[in-house]
Amino acid sequence: MSVVVQNIRRVERHIVDQIQHFGVATVHEAQGRTGLLAPYMRPIYAGARVAGNDVTVSVAPCDNWMIHVAVEQCREGDILVVAPTSFSDAGYFGDLLATSLMSRGVRGLIIDAGVRDIRDLKDMGFPVWSKCVYAQGAVKETLGSVNVPVVCAGALIHPGDLIVADDDGVCIVPRKKAGDVLQNSIAREEKEAKNRARFKAGELGLDLYKMRERLAERGLKYVDQADDE
Amino acid sequence: MSVVVQNIRRVERHIVDQIQHFGVATVHEAQGRTGLLAPYMRPIYAGARVAGNDVTVSVAPCDNWMIHVAVEQCREGDILVVAPTSFSDAGYFGDLLATSLMSRGVRGLIIDAGVRDIRDLKDMGFPVWSKCVYAQGAVKETLGSVNVPVVCAGALIHPGDLIVADDDGVCIVPRKKAGDVLQNSIAREEKEAKNRARFKAGELGLDLYKMRERLAERGLKYVDQADDE
Amino acid sequence: MSVVVQNIRRVERHIVDQIQHFGVATVHEAQGRTGLLAPYMRPIYAGARVAGNDVTVSVAPCDNWMIHVAVEQCREGDILVVAPTSFSDAGYFGDLLATSLMSRGVRGLIIDAGVRDIRDLKDMGFPVWSKCVYAQGAVKETLGSVNVPVVCAGALIHPGDLIVADDDGVCIVPRKKAGDVLQNSIAREEKEAKNRARFKAGELGLDLYKMRERLAERGLKYVDQADDE
Amino acid sequence: MSVVVQNIRRVERHIVDQIQHFGVATVHEAQGRTGLLAPYMRPIYAGARVAGNDVTVSVAPCDNWMIHVAVEQCREGDILVVAPTSFSDAGYFGDLLATSLMSRGVRGLIIDAGVRDIRDLKDMGFPVWSKCVYAQGAVKETLGSVNVPVVCAGALIHPGDLIVADDDGVCIVPRKKAGDVLQNSIAREEKEAKNRARFKAGELGLDLYKMRERLAERGLKYVDQADDE
Amino acid sequence: MSVVVQNIRRVERHIVDQIQHFGVATVHEAQGRTGLLAPYMRPIYAGARVAGNDVTVSVAPCDNWMIHVAVEQCREGDILVVAPTSFSDAGYFGDLLATSLMSRGVRGLIIDAGVRDIRDLKDMGFPVWSKCVYAQGAVKETLGSVNVPVVCAGALIHPGDLIVADDDGVCIVPRKKAGDVLQNSIAREEKEAKNRARFKAGELGLDLYKMRERLAERGLKYVDQADDE
Amino acid sequence: MSVVVQNIRRVERHIVDQIQHFGVATVHEAQGRTGLLAPYMRPIYAGARVAGNDVTVSVAPCDNWMIHVAVEQCREGDILVVAPTSFSDAGYFGDLLATSLMSRGVRGLIIDAGVRDIRDLKDMGFPVWSKCVYAQGAVKETLGSVNVPVVCAGALIHPGDLIVADDDGVCIVPRKKAGDVLQNSIAREEKEAKNRARFKAGELGLDLYKMRERLAERGLKYVDQADDE
Repeated sequence: MSVVVQNIRRVERHIVDQIQHFGVATVHEAQGRTGLLAPYMRPIYAGARVAGNDVTVSVAPCDNWMIHVAVEQCREGDILVVAPTSFSDAGYFGDLLATSLMSRGVRGLIIDAGVRDIRDLKDMGFPVWSKCVYAQGAVKETLGSVNVPVVCAGALIHPGDLIVADDDGVCIVPRKKAGDVLQNSIAREEKEAKNRARFKAGELGLDLYKMRERLAERGLKYVDQADDE
Repeated sequence: MSVVVQNIRRVERHIVDQIQHFGVATVHEAQGRTGLLAPYMRPIYAGARVAGNDVTVSVAPCDNWMIHVAVEQCREGDILVVAPTSFSDAGYFGDLLATSLMSRGVRGLIIDAGVRDIRDLKDMGFPVWSKCVYAQGAVKETLGSVNVPVVCAGALIHPGDLIVADDDGVCIVPRKKAGDVLQNSIAREEKEAKNRARFKAGELGLDLYKMRERLAERGLKYVDQADDE
Repeated sequence: MSVVVQNIRRVERHIVDQIQHFGVATVHEAQGRTGLLAPYMRPIYAGARVAGNDVTVSVAPCDNWMIHVAVEQCREGDILVVAPTSFSDAGYFGDLLATSLMSRGVRGLIIDAGVRDIRDLKDMGFPVWSKCVYAQGAVKETLGSVNVPVVCAGALIHPGDLIVADDDGVCIVPRKKAGDVLQNSIAREEKEAKNRARFKAGELGLDLYKMRERLAERGLKYVDQADDE
Repeated sequence: MSVVVQNIRRVERHIVDQIQHFGVATVHEAQGRTGLLAPYMRPIYAGARVAGNDVTVSVAPCDNWMIHVAVEQCREGDILVVAPTSFSDAGYFGDLLATSLMSRGVRGLIIDAGVRDIRDLKDMGFPVWSKCVYAQGAVKETLGSVNVPVVCAGALIHPGDLIVADDDGVCIVPRKKAGDVLQNSIAREEKEAKNRARFKAGELGLDLYKMRERLAERGLKYVDQADDE
Repeated sequence: MSVVVQNIRRVERHIVDQIQHFGVATVHEAQGRTGLLAPYMRPIYAGARVAGNDVTVSVAPCDNWMIHVAVEQCREGDILVVAPTSFSDAGYFGDLLATSLMSRGVRGLIIDAGVRDIRDLKDMGFPVWSKCVYAQGAVKETLGSVNVPVVCAGALIHPGDLIVADDDGVCIVPRKKAGDVLQNSIAREEKEAKNRARFKAGELGLDLYKMRERLAERGLKYVDQADDE
Repeated sequence: MSVVVQNIRRVERHIVDQIQHFGVATVHEAQGRTGLLAPYMRPIYAGARVAGNDVTVSVAPCDNWMIHVAVEQCREGDILVVAPTSFSDAGYFGDLLATSLMSRGVRGLIIDAGVRDIRDLKDMGFPVWSKCVYAQGAVKETLGSVNVPVVCAGALIHPGDLIVADDDGVCIVPRKKAGDVLQNSIAREEKEAKNRARFKAGELGLDLYKMRERLAERGLKYVDQADDE
């Protein structure tokens, strides 16, 4: 059955806006090393960093009809997530859909397929993380669903979950955990800032993390290079 | 038999120069969603957009001898297309060949294999779309052919066809269709410009393309999110 | 057995610093077309060019413990080479380890696996060549070795070998051959500079390399395009 | 949190045993073209066809500790589903674990990673669908979970769902839909049997499916080959 | 424009039936090392060897409508070649279409996409060479063409060309060259049979092909293994 | 410099012949989880299991000249290892070379590239582990070396090392460690035989390996499935 779920619950805006300052690596660690999408999901241009509530779209292979349906469900601060029901490289998305999404305040697109018009998207400042870049057009023949759970690039994503994306890729935070993950991210970043200063000053990880004893226990040996090597 | 076909017919210059203003996605749509090379063909640097008549080269695997032969056949406004007769990642092309081609007014290179010296090529402003970047040198032992039909990255390309390439990839337009495709591209772009303005103003694709009725006929349902989701 | 080999011999600094001016393609040719790492090794940002003595690390899959051990073995002018003992995409390296390495004068990282925090690494000016970008964290459970020979991206690398890396990829020069390869690189570059000038002036490779006679002997034919093509 | 969910609900045995007679392609169609795992999931030997209730295991990368935990949760008629939390090629599973599972009546393994001892597994008649074959050993260091929802090869799988697997790959049927999908599979197979007989007798799909009129409406033209082609 | 070209010219049957006895490797060499499809084209079961005139089908991505149209154009001794206009893994073909083709005497299928029902196809003895095995169903919405030139797995194929396929892959012989290629294949096979006997008797390729002198001229050195190696 | 190293030291025959009875997985574990070649190395037919001393060949891309040179260096009980100096899919090896090797008692081929005539090779009982199957012919133009260390499919292999290969892939054992690895393999296999019997009798790995306590310490929880799941 094809369905559009309306009025989904979202993460509170202040959480979204705070977590935007942390990178994908930090958020991934802050929720116990979970939530990453597959490493083939790459940004179409470097330097973008976004966070937002996702609106999910399940589309038939090579068919972008439901993306138009999904646009109407998007609000300011959202990120659109598009997942075909079968593996596909076609280009489901270009500058017109991006213009439509930007007019509604949408912050970016995550698509487990292809995207096109990437020079225009970069000029517009509309970031996209995709499996590939490909101009192959899609058709508008088959229904799909909006705001149902989807598997996108190996990750399970529910509507209203929190998406964080930057040059490292894409991470998904379940809606109900967003507050906790934000707190963990803040705590982790503070700790890392201190460590960063110590590393910068020349301290070694071996000492900072007190690894020497455990390494020796495990049997690590230090030798000098032999003369004939 | 190895052969160099000389004095190939080309697309008229005014058509080439006009079509250069349209992107790959537009031209691909304007000729009925055909002509794209495989999505693994990526530019070595972002931002280039070119159009030109192609000179084709069929080379033996790991052998770039015939590229030197092909240079002599190139004229101002041409784009060189290199296709090995077997899958290969070697680097058949670097800054010296690019210097030679630029001195003849050639606008770029499409190669279904590897390329090297890409920092120099970027500094020179010589754009390349390739399967990969790889410094592995090629030999000069086996003949091939120049200006014969080749299959390059999954597309059939004849000498004198029109190549359009940008950040979205590469599209081939058969020589005799170039005029029509230019007209279709102009028409499509005009229509898209109008739609872009309406999208920017907040109009939805659902309304602009009058999709609501057809979606309902197909059975699309709208529901609110359940309380326990 | 897990071992850390200390006080490895290195290439003399003046050789390292001179070879830094030559690109990967030149050095690869200058040592007889050998030494390239696999083409999937790509820089995380464009434009970096480095040379340095390598410190090698053999790590267990998804385990970055030994990288901390290796940092202590690094000196100014070194490049860290990380090779998992099994294929892996995890992100073994981020901005904290880079900070630590930079404080010791290390010039870059070559890793046959994933890397994260790449926006920070770019801002810091710490170049990395990696198989992929992926934020997936690694554990610290299993020993490995430092400064033993490793296979990294298809190439055999000994500690103290010379690494050259730029936008074309990564090339390894055995320590004892570094002096000769430098001389060959200088000679090659001089020759190419002359050829570059001649290409720029419009001379053809066919004439510059005296290819016409050999091509004719092999049977290359020149014909004009037929009227009905 | 790491958790083992016990006493999961399963599909009724008579449904499982009946659906075993239908192939993956039929079941996939019978539930509306959904449920397929990625095409890289291939059987380690040809000819196996199984259906069963799944027990799911979420494992850390390169760590097979939780598979031992999962064995205890398996019953006769089950199929084990193993999904690493990060992409991995390691060999998490071999003939000892298979022996253990067979002693409990488990019918097969679906693993989004590597498997080893495949000659023994074939001799034992224990079928496996996996991403690859690789002997690389796994460690036992990190907890995971048993019988939680997992994403395996691009599909969302809940504990107690129905797995169907054969030479075409793997299909997942949600537990609550299993009865309906069985009915649809029976109906589809009956219809296909009739069509198969008509095809065998030489009837064309064009006539059987009454396609000629619709093709003509869309504009399909029939021409004879030109004399000069 | 979508078109079905009827009454294509074919290679004479006696040539087809004779060339069937030679493998893909022989035919590929016999026509000057050309004509191979990409190595990702693999048979769904081992041991099949076929030759036949091809009927080509150009299909839209994920759409198998035109395959039904193509069946009607097939005759005894033909091989069907299916090429999507964009990269696709969907399963366009299963046992019903195979039944229909077999009733017309078609000898096999070459498809640059997915195939399903492979156990049934093997039982029926209908060989298929495909990019992958995948049960994902296709739709019937968009026209394509039959018996036009197509690019399939990197090779240009015209209707009525001769296809040879076995466990090594697929090779295409242009229709007009089929007679000559058959003669070359016979000659090559005779020569290889003699060489095979000499190799079996222990003669070395170095002597049989008189390589020793040329190797020495090029500078090949023979040394004994050093004592410390 | 191109060189042929003659009279290499080999592993004693009784060790080779004994280790042949153990699979790749066992030998890989018996030498501390090292020595595996990349998982893309697959046998051309199922069921072969070999062990032998390797003769290594370093070949130029798409050039199989040196394989003929290497044949002369092979003795009974050897396995030929072919590694191109650059990534390549060409078919360097077919039934004639196999006939030549079999006449000398060579047990198989490991090649990090393509192979052809695989139906004949299977009929002859000459096993090959390769990156791919591809009929593309190679040339004989460029020297390489025989019996030098090579990197093959990600593993460093010296001449005279011990190769073990079966359906799980390929494992390399350094010559000097072969005796110890054999002893470890025997011990491991004995232990596994005992465990296999206990698993067969229904004992759980949790109990056999005494895992329950450690799992509880790490915090593993057991719960029953909730009623609303």
